[in-house]
Amino acid sequence: MAEFAYDIRDLKFILNEWLDMDEVFSLERFKDNYEKDDIDFILNEVYKMAKEVVFPINKEGDEIGVKYENGQVKLPSSYVEAYKFLQENGWGSANESLGSDELMPLTLYRAYNEMLMAACPALTSYIKLTTGAANLIYRFGTDKDRELFIENMLSGKWSGTMCLTEPNAGSDVGDATTRAYPTDDHRIYKIKGTKMFITGGEVDLSENIIHMVLARPEGGAPGSKGLGLYIVPKIWVNDDGSLGEPNDVTCIGVEHKMGLKASATAMLSFGENDNCRGILVGSPPDENGVSKGLAMMFHMMNESRIGTGHNALAQMAAAYYFASRYATERIQGRPFTNPKAGRVPLIKHEDIRRMLIEMKAQIEGIRAMIFKGFYYLDVAEHSSDKEKAARCQGLAEILTPLIKTYASETAWQMIGQAIQVYGGVGYTEEYPVSQYARDVKILSIWEGTSFIHAMDLVGRKMRMKDGVPFTNWMDDRKEFIEKNKDADSFSSEMKQLEKAYNCVAEIRDLFASYYANRGEKGELIPLYAPRVLTCCAQLFAAEAIMDQALLAKKKIEELGVDHHDYAYYVGKVNTAKFFVNNILPNVYMQTELIKNADKSALECPEEALVIS
Amino acid sequence: MAEFAYDIRDLKFILNEWLDMDEVFSLERFKDNYEKDDIDFILNEVYKMAKEVVFPINKEGDEIGVKYENGQVKLPSSYVEAYKFLQENGWGSANESLGSDELMPLTLYRAYNEMLMAACPALTSYIKLTTGAANLIYRFGTDKDRELFIENMLSGKWSGTMCLTEPNAGSDVGDATTRAYPTDDHRIYKIKGTKMFITGGEVDLSENIIHMVLARPEGGAPGSKGLGLYIVPKIWVNDDGSLGEPNDVTCIGVEHKMGLKASATAMLSFGENDNCRGILVGSPPDENGVSKGLAMMFHMMNESRIGTGHNALAQMAAAYYFASRYATERIQGRPFTNPKAGRVPLIKHEDIRRMLIEMKAQIEGIRAMIFKGFYYLDVAEHSSDKEKAARCQGLAEILTPLIKTYASETAWQMIGQAIQVYGGVGYTEEYPVSQYARDVKILSIWEGTSFIHAMDLVGRKMRMKDGVPFTNWMDDRKEFIEKNKDADSFSSEMKQLEKAYNCVAEIRDLFASYYANRGEKGELIPLYAPRVLTCCAQLFAAEAIMDQALLAKKKIEELGVDHHDYAYYVGKVNTAKFFVNNILPNVYMQTELIKNADKSALECPEEALVIS
Repeated sequence: MAEFAYDIRDLKFILNEWLDMDEVFSLERFKDNYEKDDIDFILNEVYKMAKEVVFPINKEGDEIGVKYENGQVKLPSSYVEAYKFLQENGWGSANESLGSDELMPLTLYRAYNEMLMAACPALTSYIKLTTGAANLIYRFGTDKDRELFIENMLSGKWSGTMCLTEPNAGSDVGDATTRAYPTDDHRIYKIKGTKMFITGGEVDLSENIIHMVLARPEGGAPGSKGLGLYIVPKIWVNDDGSLGEPNDVTCIGVEHKMGLKASATAMLSFGENDNCRGILVGSPPDENGVSKGLAMMFHMMNESRIGTGHNALAQMAAAYYFASRYATERIQGRPFTNPKAGRVPLIKHEDIRRMLIEMKAQIEGIRAMIFKGFYYLDVAEHSSDKEKAARCQGLAEILTPLIKTYASETAWQMIGQAIQVYGGVGYTEEYPVSQYARDVKILSIWEGTSFIHAMDLVGRKMRMKDGVPFTNWMDDRKEFIEKNKDADSFSSEMKQLEKAYNCVAEIRDLFASYYANRGEKGELIPLYAPRVLTCCAQLFAAEAIMDQALLAKKKIEELGVDHHDYAYYVGKVNTAKFFVNNILPNVYMQTELIKNADKSALECPEEALVIS
Repeated sequence: MAEFAYDIRDLKFILNEWLDMDEVFSLERFKDNYEKDDIDFILNEVYKMAKEVVFPINKEGDEIGVKYENGQVKLPSSYVEAYKFLQENGWGSANESLGSDELMPLTLYRAYNEMLMAACPALTSYIKLTTGAANLIYRFGTDKDRELFIENMLSGKWSGTMCLTEPNAGSDVGDATTRAYPTDDHRIYKIKGTKMFITGGEVDLSENIIHMVLARPEGGAPGSKGLGLYIVPKIWVNDDGSLGEPNDVTCIGVEHKMGLKASATAMLSFGENDNCRGILVGSPPDENGVSKGLAMMFHMMNESRIGTGHNALAQMAAAYYFASRYATERIQGRPFTNPKAGRVPLIKHEDIRRMLIEMKAQIEGIRAMIFKGFYYLDVAEHSSDKEKAARCQGLAEILTPLIKTYASETAWQMIGQAIQVYGGVGYTEEYPVSQYARDVKILSIWEGTSFIHAMDLVGRKMRMKDGVPFTNWMDDRKEFIEKNKDADSFSSEMKQLEKAYNCVAEIRDLFASYYANRGEKGELIPLYAPRVLTCCAQLFAAEAIMDQALLAKKKIEELGVDHHDYAYYVGKVNTAKFFVNNILPNVYMQTELIKNADKSALECPEEALVIS
């Protein structure tokens, strides 16, 4: 089996050299617990674990998958062990848990977590959901809730889930029909309903599962605003913290999926015997039947949506790193420019290099975008400078849909390309890339489909708070361009960046005019929103990797050609040039398409669009 | 399980209305056997079979796959039955077999075959390979070879394979090391070597398997020109046609693949006991050690490469048709332009329509391109007008790489999009689209990778015969534009087509200058060849679907809004507009990139490109 390898150098570059981590580590919340010197140690340790403990179970999980029998789900035992290993040794939920002393900056936590996701995305999904559930309880639960649940979740003793989707309410979560009936105890409700696509909804990872369930209380308003949030343990937790009776949560089945086969996707029935109790989080519905359940859930969303994009990035990066090594090992063909030379490794062929650098450029551009997002979130959550925090919060909210969607859509294409680098063997399950292709596809659907995020961008993020956050976002781009316009040896790239910026500015104005004239132009908004998202993402990623290249250029001048990092920095410059010259031009084309506003998709008769 | 449906209307449009099938049916070879009136009957019959006999086994094949044990491979029994059913009832190899009275025009054969490939691509791969092997024997074998082999292959009694790839010779087939040693009988050689990725290399479909094997005879030149072609039956066939001894062909194993799991991909060892006999096809090596084995194999290549693109088209079409129906059935969300209306089916959402029409446009553009290719091949092979035949041969050869590569690369993206239309359930194996995604990926590697075809286009097809065929190809594009420039209600589309034509003309000249100055510009050829291929394919497909739209426009005017085909024709016009306005502009962008000639992919240090 091929060994796992990861570009730990790029992660170190981001944290040690590129982002202002001094600022992050000096935030009150972190300053006594972590420092910049921890970065290399932590990344090195986790890299070792990713290679030795986590990646080795990735294929087994794919082959064995989860087994469902009589309402119970069995994971391969190696998953249970690896889960416990990470949680118990402090490489899991605790580092991302708001209530924990071990809480790390997201920038740091996610840097090491990226390697674990790359090594086994099915495993890390359980950790992520447990963290998410624990953080919801921490943020919105009572002291008692925190005391009863959090510690056991962080230690790996219990796991957690998020229960939103129902058979008839997917993208439109507001149509959920799961109900919550009040009981004599004002904080306890009886829960009744069915949830589906629940990752980790039933697994044998731990002795209990804590479900965070959206349900509509009696008297709740229709739509998403009527939904409340409830803590629903699989096994009831007594007031003294001991386990009580099973809580009438039944697993009806698991999905048979194209990939992520060791990630149990469960269908759950709550209260089949009228005996399922949930603990209300936050307040009961107000006089208008409005609850804040979804809003609370959404509080975790920026992070988990960026996390989903990050997951896609990690998988495509792993696939690229495997493909890049195969390209040096596999001997095939002769050089086009010198056919009389002997046979050469794949990587000597121009087209293989083009495929590899395209992956590298997408990966490093997206990674830069993602870590900017985490940096914004760190500052937004923990800075005492409230103005800066608010500005960063806005920027993170704008990046969220870009990262989630651009990363997950690009991953499908790029992992397909990794298979192509391998050739025929890439299509076999003997090599790891086909599994990544199968595993990654769900990420453009999870946590909101690509379209939902496109609408989040144009409908909400561009317009929220009178457009101030988006104006800030655009100003940052403009500032970068002004500042680096005349940067040595990047002048043509900077011109392209400026051109792309002007495109996005034009699109922004166009969409503002659509919103101002929704009667006539309204249908163009959802029709072209996904293209707007792509343009914004490519502009941001191009700038971020250009910013990195400018830094790399400086390092090259400082360190010289003999330095061991010389190739890394030169590669960064080439990669940024590739991105700007080969990927960014898509923005100009998309802008023309958006302005052209062809409506054939809407005009085509439904009978012609549907084949039956 | 969802039912299989296919756009038989579009196939009928192509054969009955769009292509000049009168010309095809009047060719000497067909005129007594088939006529235009047969089209609807044949398509209707096969559509019924595809639904009732073929599609129902598609999922079973994916779940059960092939079983390898002790050198033998077992298919699900339903595959064996379906294979026999199609072959014995005259819906298989016979219709495509040069030696058979049942030989159909490719245009007609492939039209019905498209539905079978869409219904179960793993099954049709066996038929296709049997046909290919039989046609090689027909074209280049002796009368005795024909007598011994062909009838039993066409009847389904025996199956056939093509054996090119070896563990150390994939894309570079000329590095094959399988050897052929002369015996006392000048036509019989002893074969020794290992072949891999042999579709149908070992299966229990029939009582014998006829392998067409490339091997290097003693004294053969190195490289591809030294390879000879041999008929190597799994079980020896005696002179009287009876079966003899097993012929020392051993199946060492089968590949575990991401998809196409019921298509057995075998590794074969020939002559482990020095007892494997092959019958030489064509002449022994000449005094320079040159054989024509690969050239003979390549004689079938245009057809089988177009066939591979066609396979990709069929699969993406099936995925689209499934997704389109799901979009009418699944209720989710409210209309953006009228949120107070109730919940609506997915297809009412603008973004779903955009995804569907993009699939439709790619599919119908590619299908039009493919059937033009088959039309050219029919005329090239069978026309008595030698000049026209030669012209069509050239055009078919130019279309071949475009079809093979553009269809297979596009299919991966479009089937990913079909999953996206479904949302979460599309990722489960309960719905058929995820299987299509897994099945289709190999097609960008089979029959030559995408890069090989890109080089075939720019290095061979654009330049062969002093560039005359490519000039003819460009002249056809120009003629279409001249003729339809002022076509009513398509003027903006025709302008775009002209712009794309000018782009391709510019690229052609640029590449000619690269070839004229290979020392300095040579490396740009392989670096940008894939983009050139995409531009040529999108130009051709855009024109072909515009041509169809012009015809549809006429039909609309003739038949009026109440005609039952009205929606189909209007859809065709919308689809062509979508293609030209949303897909074709990629040609302008690619042309700019090609002219920009960024070389960062080549300049990036290998140490930076490879993560180890």
